[in-house]
Amino acid sequence: MVSVIKIGGSLAKDRSSLVRLCQRLVFLSKKNEIMIVPGGGNFADTVRYFYDEFRLSEDIAHKMAILAMDQYGLLLKDIIGEARLVYDLDDTLQYKKRLSIILPSKIMFSLDSLEHSWNVTSDSISAFIASLLKAEKLILIKDVDGIFTVDPMKNSKAKIFKRISAKKLLKENMKSCIDEFLPRILIEKQLICYVVSGKHPERIESVLKGRKDLFTEITPYPSRALL
Amino acid sequence: MVSVIKIGGSLAKDRSSLVRLCQRLVFLSKKNEIMIVPGGGNFADTVRYFYDEFRLSEDIAHKMAILAMDQYGLLLKDIIGEARLVYDLDDTLQYKKRLSIILPSKIMFSLDSLEHSWNVTSDSISAFIASLLKAEKLILIKDVDGIFTVDPMKNSKAKIFKRISAKKLLKENMKSCIDEFLPRILIEKQLICYVVSGKHPERIESVLKGRKDLFTEITPYPSRALL
Repeated sequence: MVSVIKIGGSLAKDRSSLVRLCQRLVFLSKKNEIMIVPGGGNFADTVRYFYDEFRLSEDIAHKMAILAMDQYGLLLKDIIGEARLVYDLDDTLQYKKRLSIILPSKIMFSLDSLEHSWNVTSDSISAFIASLLKAEKLILIKDVDGIFTVDPMKNSKAKIFKRISAKKLLKENMKSCIDEFLPRILIEKQLICYVVSGKHPERIESVLKGRKDLFTEITPYPSRALL
Repeated sequence: MVSVIKIGGSLAKDRSSLVRLCQRLVFLSKKNEIMIVPGGGNFADTVRYFYDEFRLSEDIAHKMAILAMDQYGLLLKDIIGEARLVYDLDDTLQYKKRLSIILPSKIMFSLDSLEHSWNVTSDSISAFIASLLKAEKLILIKDVDGIFTVDPMKNSKAKIFKRISAKKLLKENMKSCIDEFLPRILIEKQLICYVVSGKHPERIESVLKGRKDLFTEITPYPSRALL
């Protein structure tokens, strides 16, 4: 079954670690069906700057930010020459068994089924695409180890959640590295999601193999949080 | 006949003057058929940053930069609510007599007939689109008054060309505010081009009416330069 892997835009801050991550995904794609969804990163930051500066409508900014994901997807394609660019959901069936990078604008503009706001970023968009593809797993690759009890940059006592339910994230309105809308879509689509560090690509292999490692699993069903 | 007007990305530096410019274009579109092509501006600058940082291929960077034009086009649509977004050349016929903003990615990705390099920016792309539309005039709106003999920021003796031939621009490899490829495409497509300041929108009206004013006319045929 397919796993959708979102590569966060923040990983583009460090070229060599992004390249290493991409190489690992190429390797993993030999035995796993992987569809990459790009984040927005600096491209989306530029959109956000104009959103603030020009007081753009959420509608327009949402579309511009999705084009930012296309831009980052093209950048990833430049790194992973052998990957196939996918514009349409029909293409994804055709390209099974081949590492694919989804450029989401065409799909998202035609379906247009998520709310248009900054609460819906590439996290939620990748979850939505994962649900369309009936993916088994959604893996969000970030520049942090997972979801923490409190901000680990500000509090040395922060602990990582090994497991946390989407409902708990929603209920406690926890500030974390994921976008606000994501827990809702995980519950609605009953999708399991993993938040994994892109600086340790071996952990992605652990997720794919169902092996224990350092990352956070977000369950779409009620479950006890696990530290 | 249609006039293609490219709004340079640099004009987004000053929101109020960009809004004023857009309002004037709405007014002018009542009596003139106007198709707007967006520049790339800061959106393209972000692409250029990653082009340098990641040593991206020209092919990929070219596509990313065209998506930057789409982004700026959406921003312009947010300012000009009544404008129609155009994705296809067929649409342009349908929307005649209505102010249109062309989002060029679909057209450019399907035709793919310009060289993929940073010598080809939104100046050349708007010229290419103007030729496809058989436009009478191509108007490039910039944040400068026109093309100068030398850089007016560095030399107080700089004089503006009222008229200059594309051939002279090519031959003397003059550094100016237009991209390097533009003169070639103007000659090939026999297209008249005007470089006009967006800070003085009344000059655009002068161009449309064939009235004298402060701007530079670039002729596709040989002609004596006029200061």
